[in-house]
Amino acid sequence: MGRISQRLNDLHITLPQPPRAAANYAPWQRAGDLVFISGQLTFENGAIRYPGRVGAELSIEEGKAAARLCCLNLLAQMSAACDGDLDRISQVVRIGCFLAVAENFTEHPPVLNGASDLVFDIFGPQIGNHTRFAASAHILPLNSPIMIEGVVYLGK
Amino acid sequence: MGRISQRLNDLHITLPQPPRAAANYAPWQRAGDLVFISGQLTFENGAIRYPGRVGAELSIEEGKAAARLCCLNLLAQMSAACDGDLDRISQVVRIGCFLAVAENFTEHPPVLNGASDLVFDIFGPQIGNHTRFAASAHILPLNSPIMIEGVVYLGK
Amino acid sequence: MGRISQRLNDLHITLPQPPRAAANYAPWQRAGDLVFISGQLTFENGAIRYPGRVGAELSIEEGKAAARLCCLNLLAQMSAACDGDLDRISQVVRIGCFLAVAENFTEHPPVLNGASDLVFDIFGPQIGNHTRFAASAHILPLNSPIMIEGVVYLGK
Repeated sequence: MGRISQRLNDLHITLPQPPRAAANYAPWQRAGDLVFISGQLTFENGAIRYPGRVGAELSIEEGKAAARLCCLNLLAQMSAACDGDLDRISQVVRIGCFLAVAENFTEHPPVLNGASDLVFDIFGPQIGNHTRFAASAHILPLNSPIMIEGVVYLGK
Repeated sequence: MGRISQRLNDLHITLPQPPRAAANYAPWQRAGDLVFISGQLTFENGAIRYPGRVGAELSIEEGKAAARLCCLNLLAQMSAACDGDLDRISQVVRIGCFLAVAENFTEHPPVLNGASDLVFDIFGPQIGNHTRFAASAHILPLNSPIMIEGVVYLGK
Repeated sequence: MGRISQRLNDLHITLPQPPRAAANYAPWQRAGDLVFISGQLTFENGAIRYPGRVGAELSIEEGKAAARLCCLNLLAQMSAACDGDLDRISQVVRIGCFLAVAENFTEHPPVLNGASDLVFDIFGPQIGNHTRFAASAHILPLNSPIMIEGVVYLGK
């Protein structure tokens, strides 16, 4: 069993089936040693969980749980891109986060730590040491509270 | 005539002149085997076509037409980046889509297929098999209903 | 003294200390010859300067000053990623800009030139010839008026 698979076991995390792309595009694509992952939503068992906006329909804690779920889907796509072997990822490079928020909500950092903490928990402080950006929207596709896209590196 | 040029002919598509950058930046830039394309708007003959938001001033069908037009401008920039030879692109890697939408609009996927379908039509199911993310905004630059940026790969 | 350090001196620009990441992520990360920089806000001396939205609390000129400040933080992170030697950057590839704007504000290009002009001033017309995208939000993290993320290239 690979190091990351062992880590997932230790954390009692089972990656979901990678969601199908919501439309006519690829869930991931490789370009040299980089893999780009399409934007993921909070799909769980085929439906959007936690619909709405943080600061309105959702609390910060719910937003954080939504960010973690969204990141699980991102990790599932990473795994699919690596034929199930997450040990092939030498660096999680970037997660780009879009959060649906109420008009005056500005507390994105703790919400998005729901995603970033998961990346660190699974990949550790070196391979998991990703960059991040946090943008907002007044509404997101399918009323998902968050969308996260990513880039990972498979090179040496 | 190259394969992609032939395909454009077959589809009766003439790429527009690549729009000038709207301000002080480059329309595209190469980094190793990757080419990054700046965010494109719905310019047509020097003016923004389809101004407004999908779900308010624009219907889904109009939004889809706007996404296709925006993607034509993206393709024109890709072509310029390749000295007019789109066959040099070995993979369309990513399109990043920002859609101006009304307050409760969540049907981004069919709208953005206006862009993705065009990529597949022109590049086919392998080279055209791009990743995508779909974000929203309440308004976009110059009141364009959509902005799309992209990354293509020229390597082997 | 390197060429870029000399240029900074000539322009009387002192890069700020690179802001700490606002949460649990890395300020920059390398992937091969690319360096990704996390989204930067308008931090100055540990606090957000120019809070609010362009077209509402902020004028275009204030927005432009905010974009320049945000870009200074981006440059500080680039410098940190290069051990203080910005001459190692062979190409500024992309800046991704998110602007908090009022409901009907569409004049993003001149505002964001506050960032792009700085990149050109410092790196010159070749290395500084970056791509850009400009998106909007109704509000941004910590009420910063702008967030900018970036990609630079260190290869040949």
